[in-house]
Amino acid sequence: MNKACLKFYCPDRAGIVARISEFLFANKLNIINLEQHSENGIFFTRIKWEDIENWKNEAEFQKDFASICDEFQGQVFVHFFARVQTCGLFVSRELHALAEILTKVELGDYENIQIPFIISNSRNAEKLANYYNIPFYYTPTKKDSFAHEEKQLEIIAKYSPDFIGLARYMKILSADFINQVGCPIINIHHSFLPSFVGARPYEMAYERGVKLIGATSHFVIPELDQGPIIEQDVARIRSGYSILKMKKQGADIEKKVFARALAKVFEHKVLVYENRTVVFE
Amino acid sequence: MNKACLKFYCPDRAGIVARISEFLFANKLNIINLEQHSENGIFFTRIKWEDIENWKNEAEFQKDFASICDEFQGQVFVHFFARVQTCGLFVSRELHALAEILTKVELGDYENIQIPFIISNSRNAEKLANYYNIPFYYTPTKKDSFAHEEKQLEIIAKYSPDFIGLARYMKILSADFINQVGCPIINIHHSFLPSFVGARPYEMAYERGVKLIGATSHFVIPELDQGPIIEQDVARIRSGYSILKMKKQGADIEKKVFARALAKVFEHKVLVYENRTVVFE
Amino acid sequence: MNKACLKFYCPDRAGIVARISEFLFANKLNIINLEQHSENGIFFTRIKWEDIENWKNEAEFQKDFASICDEFQGQVFVHFFARVQTCGLFVSRELHALAEILTKVELGDYENIQIPFIISNSRNAEKLANYYNIPFYYTPTKKDSFAHEEKQLEIIAKYSPDFIGLARYMKILSADFINQVGCPIINIHHSFLPSFVGARPYEMAYERGVKLIGATSHFVIPELDQGPIIEQDVARIRSGYSILKMKKQGADIEKKVFARALAKVFEHKVLVYENRTVVFE
Amino acid sequence: MNKACLKFYCPDRAGIVARISEFLFANKLNIINLEQHSENGIFFTRIKWEDIENWKNEAEFQKDFASICDEFQGQVFVHFFARVQTCGLFVSRELHALAEILTKVELGDYENIQIPFIISNSRNAEKLANYYNIPFYYTPTKKDSFAHEEKQLEIIAKYSPDFIGLARYMKILSADFINQVGCPIINIHHSFLPSFVGARPYEMAYERGVKLIGATSHFVIPELDQGPIIEQDVARIRSGYSILKMKKQGADIEKKVFARALAKVFEHKVLVYENRTVVFE
Repeated sequence: MNKACLKFYCPDRAGIVARISEFLFANKLNIINLEQHSENGIFFTRIKWEDIENWKNEAEFQKDFASICDEFQGQVFVHFFARVQTCGLFVSRELHALAEILTKVELGDYENIQIPFIISNSRNAEKLANYYNIPFYYTPTKKDSFAHEEKQLEIIAKYSPDFIGLARYMKILSADFINQVGCPIINIHHSFLPSFVGARPYEMAYERGVKLIGATSHFVIPELDQGPIIEQDVARIRSGYSILKMKKQGADIEKKVFARALAKVFEHKVLVYENRTVVFE
Repeated sequence: MNKACLKFYCPDRAGIVARISEFLFANKLNIINLEQHSENGIFFTRIKWEDIENWKNEAEFQKDFASICDEFQGQVFVHFFARVQTCGLFVSRELHALAEILTKVELGDYENIQIPFIISNSRNAEKLANYYNIPFYYTPTKKDSFAHEEKQLEIIAKYSPDFIGLARYMKILSADFINQVGCPIINIHHSFLPSFVGARPYEMAYERGVKLIGATSHFVIPELDQGPIIEQDVARIRSGYSILKMKKQGADIEKKVFARALAKVFEHKVLVYENRTVVFE
Repeated sequence: MNKACLKFYCPDRAGIVARISEFLFANKLNIINLEQHSENGIFFTRIKWEDIENWKNEAEFQKDFASICDEFQGQVFVHFFARVQTCGLFVSRELHALAEILTKVELGDYENIQIPFIISNSRNAEKLANYYNIPFYYTPTKKDSFAHEEKQLEIIAKYSPDFIGLARYMKILSADFINQVGCPIINIHHSFLPSFVGARPYEMAYERGVKLIGATSHFVIPELDQGPIIEQDVARIRSGYSILKMKKQGADIEKKVFARALAKVFEHKVLVYENRTVVFE
Repeated sequence: MNKACLKFYCPDRAGIVARISEFLFANKLNIINLEQHSENGIFFTRIKWEDIENWKNEAEFQKDFASICDEFQGQVFVHFFARVQTCGLFVSRELHALAEILTKVELGDYENIQIPFIISNSRNAEKLANYYNIPFYYTPTKKDSFAHEEKQLEIIAKYSPDFIGLARYMKILSADFINQVGCPIINIHHSFLPSFVGARPYEMAYERGVKLIGATSHFVIPELDQGPIIEQDVARIRSGYSILKMKKQGADIEKKVFARALAKVFEHKVLVYENRTVVFE
């Protein structure tokens, strides 16, 4: 638990690794994992270390590190793994992605993660929420209306989660909601984006006769299904599969991709730069 | 070598398998492989058998089988594997897909397949063609002109190939060419269609930040990159990959997918129905 | 629901498909899916059809079909999909595979499947069993003793399940148990068999430095980890992964492979012949 | 071309990254890629940088770096990418792996790599060698004799290659040969090791009824098929595949895995420690 990581990016030049690693060494920390690369003139790194007693919390670290940010015109993000992170979940009628995440949290697959609430425009998930003792909020939605978002934002404000995960939540979020929510939103889309944007990807995939179906987990931005992609995967389908069978098989990919994307986000292995992600391994 | 297969489709109803298998049994043939399924009211099957001495050639078989087609309002295609099939190849500057196919033909990965000619708008492939003793035709192309197609159609007419494979041929074919060519054309597209239609898919994939790149082999129809898909596959890319590195990795997928698609076509495991393929295993 | 399938194998010869399909057609049934192939002189087929009103139950069908079995010296298995099938589950401390199956049953991913009981040598699964209202039996085990099997066989006898699934049950079954249990047992082994037989596959995989880890679902026979393989899959690991991280990633493969293997078994797409499976698609 | 990389390992402690990156920065070099992790108390890193004018060659760099090795009791390996590397190839009758590598070298998939010779105990590869203007040496082998190795060692001594690749060379190398050869030997084994060690893996895979077949590329050590694994991959097979069909499909995996393993080796992304590899991405 006594571990921490930082992500950092800045315009590339010589000496950045030396400067940061000296800073950590001067604080008697031992780097246990470091990844760095440069891309189009930008330097990206993620560094994980042990023994963080020098700083009481992330804010103190950030204060100490500010001079490095200034020197290189860079951005830093730091996380202390001893701190519990929370991820509120949204879901609609289909529960496979939600059940996968709740099972993983329960079985300890994610370290130090809690689910503070589940919000849904269906009552399908209520029983599951109760089983896990997670507060469940039913916020029904109406076509062409965003009136329900006010209540949702109130709930979110109450919990201040670190992240929100859309575990097959089938209502579009307004730009206002996205701007006000105050934390990153991670969605699972049921196709291999950018193919088959929108609400009926399996029908479109069937129509086009593709041989693999996929799923895409991405950060949500106001433009529908256009946010930075975190993780994708595919599964092979065979001739003769009905759309229903494609959906069933697709559900297995969706939940796997969503679970992996959340793991990456929870471990702070994802950095967003110009609507693309840098994903560290 | 003494084997044959038929593909058949018709409106679905009871008794079709019984009728066809009786016909084959009455001719003393032994079915060694049969796949059948129904989809949206259409019956599809592929049947492979041994011992075809009853008919001198495919045309004779087709004549005998005509009554079954009439009875079920169906379409049949038959192939005797003892007959050599030919596949003319088109290529531009990049040779990886071409080299893969030529190597596979040479090493006997495809049964009874010959490459009668290579046509190219670049001289890059000439040395390779000479090594394999395959006639090479250089047909230079000009922007916004289809004048070169006349010469190409003459060459094709001379050889009457069973198939044409576009092994990364980077010039669009005119609708006239496609209609006159007289055999199926199989293309390898350097993306996971329908994502990234057109000429610069890796650049588009990089821009969008996808986590898997792919390749798609499809039959060519006049609408660009819209033909029935035969085979697709993907490969994972990592953060920090340049477009060049994506292209190199993509080339490996392209050649693999193209080689597999041709294998399916050469073995008559692909049937086209309403711009989608039925692919038998 | 009004569907059925048969699996059949016999020494290969001409006319078998014709004979069976005539039989079905004579009973006014419509074949919706058929797969057949011959391998080493043995004919294997699976046929699925609609409309089964001719027979009250599977036993009646089998009686009618007996003459075909006699004629070809073959074995037939038939299943009417309207009949509910039951699969008892065994588990030890680790719950990921169990949770996956229970979720899939709950969400309707398997058709007409019920879980009649959960047996465990740990109390870990009890809460989950209660949530799903599945009778839970705690049968503690002792090292080098098979005394607990008597109680387990009593429980099984009470429910007469169609199948038993070992969802990461970490106690070896005695040959007596396997012989007396009266139904197929499907296990999930946490390695890519035949690599790493036994109890510590991830440790062995780490030691050997393999680049992919896997999971194998197989029917249980008295010889440990030697039964007919139903399904396998792998996942890539990276340098620097600890054994713990390999186990976490492996758990995702295990549950996926187990879920797929059970789906194949429940749909009667698996046929065992000479300690190998024929798996229909 | 003006790039270089180093691989380094030593007992882990704080300050190593700082020390090395300061050294590089003091030499005015810009790190463009860095990967580091610790495993069981050992620190491993690979660092790639631009602008290497400070040193005339790798030996000079190594001399300058010696103090760091001493300080941390570490081992360093350095490569300047401007230097051409050579890889001699061995092959027997089957040419798919050889053809793949030669094509990749020809098409520029590997940077700055040359194939100085091909040695074979069959004449099958001679035509291919001639096409690429690569000296071909025919060294016939006899059962239970290693007499041919003397001649092979002479040829190798003449060229002093950086690496030797066994592109499906089906004769076991003696321990003497391996000890005297003077460079790493990379083999492609036609199974997913440690499954199916030895000469008939596809037959064994068929017999065992596995659902995936694989290939493994590894460094050669005197113990047969026991060397450090560099890369592995698998492909799905279907019921009804003959051993011949498995071999054909396996060949595609073999050549792909071998090509990838060589790429990793040529780019110095592989480090051997205690009979396991650390593979950097």
